[in-house]
Amino acid sequence: MYPALFEALVECFRKFPGVGVKTAERYAFEFLNWNQNEIDEFLSVCEKAKKNIHTCKICGNLAEGDLCEICRDETRDTTTICVVEQIQDLIAMEKTQEYKGVYHVLGGAISPSKGVLPEDIQIDGLINRCDDSVKEIILANNPTVEGETTALYLSKLLESKNVNITRIAHGLPMGGHLDYADELTLIKALENRKKMK
Amino acid sequence: MYPALFEALVECFRKFPGVGVKTAERYAFEFLNWNQNEIDEFLSVCEKAKKNIHTCKICGNLAEGDLCEICRDETRDTTTICVVEQIQDLIAMEKTQEYKGVYHVLGGAISPSKGVLPEDIQIDGLINRCDDSVKEIILANNPTVEGETTALYLSKLLESKNVNITRIAHGLPMGGHLDYADELTLIKALENRKKMK
Repeated sequence: MYPALFEALVECFRKFPGVGVKTAERYAFEFLNWNQNEIDEFLSVCEKAKKNIHTCKICGNLAEGDLCEICRDETRDTTTICVVEQIQDLIAMEKTQEYKGVYHVLGGAISPSKGVLPEDIQIDGLINRCDDSVKEIILANNPTVEGETTALYLSKLLESKNVNITRIAHGLPMGGHLDYADELTLIKALENRKKMK
Repeated sequence: MYPALFEALVECFRKFPGVGVKTAERYAFEFLNWNQNEIDEFLSVCEKAKKNIHTCKICGNLAEGDLCEICRDETRDTTTICVVEQIQDLIAMEKTQEYKGVYHVLGGAISPSKGVLPEDIQIDGLINRCDDSVKEIILANNPTVEGETTALYLSKLLESKNVNITRIAHGLPMGGHLDYADELTLIKALENRKKMK
């Protein structure tokens, strides 16, 4: 129904996650409504981003050069490595402004059912980083079946190394209500209870 | 938190309608995951689309040249013009494969509260097209307050012309249920009842 080129544009936008035909059509109309400056800006940022954004050779975070800002920052504590699944998780952690160590981005979680095996995520890189200078590895994998599996796998792998392996805490989220929490979360919250005084 | 260039990429994607920060970030990560071929294809389609897709000089539909496929199609009945608000509405109409006339895309609806006045939509073009050869103008504006206002405005404007002005029917959508229909729709469905035999 639409001109072939418009359909091609719609197909381009459909490649983004969660975008169906209707949404892609809205994006395409919006795109065509932009003036030439806006389009040029959009295309140039896209081009530059692909050319200049890499993943950090050490930790897997986004980086404009070889190393990311965190790995280049000499004030960070390189004796503590926080292991996360995705770059987004690293950013979430950074936003707390509490963590001063460095990171390792796995790029996913082990999930045989989805065809993700240990060799498909960045485990080797983590093992290689684990020299004697590293004192603690915080496993901040997501509290999902896949995340727990990966955390368990990593803790077994790292057993032989002289390093503390910790797992982020599970429990009630702050501001949450007991009667809205799922059972598994409540069980974990009970199990992990702390002495108050 | 992210590299500046990545933030710029996220901002680019945020310009699309209904895209918030989280979604834009997902799009940006997806974009960076594409290989060079996919990126090149994406950028080239975007560029070509902006350069070659225009609006039809007659009806306002999307066109790769001066005129759209419908206006170029000599088998279409140019004595009937269906007036729609948006190109998407024209496509919805075309998908029925029932309508053989031509179209006029207004590009919106009159809405003083949103600052859209009659001169902001393509009314002049419609009036100019309304010569003696045109027998019927079907007002297919949306059944919203703005759409109804625009339809009423157009019907007054076209009164002096020797042309039938019709409005698409309002009533229960096919497959709908009475108890789910809103009152206004039911009132219209009653008002517009037809003799069955």
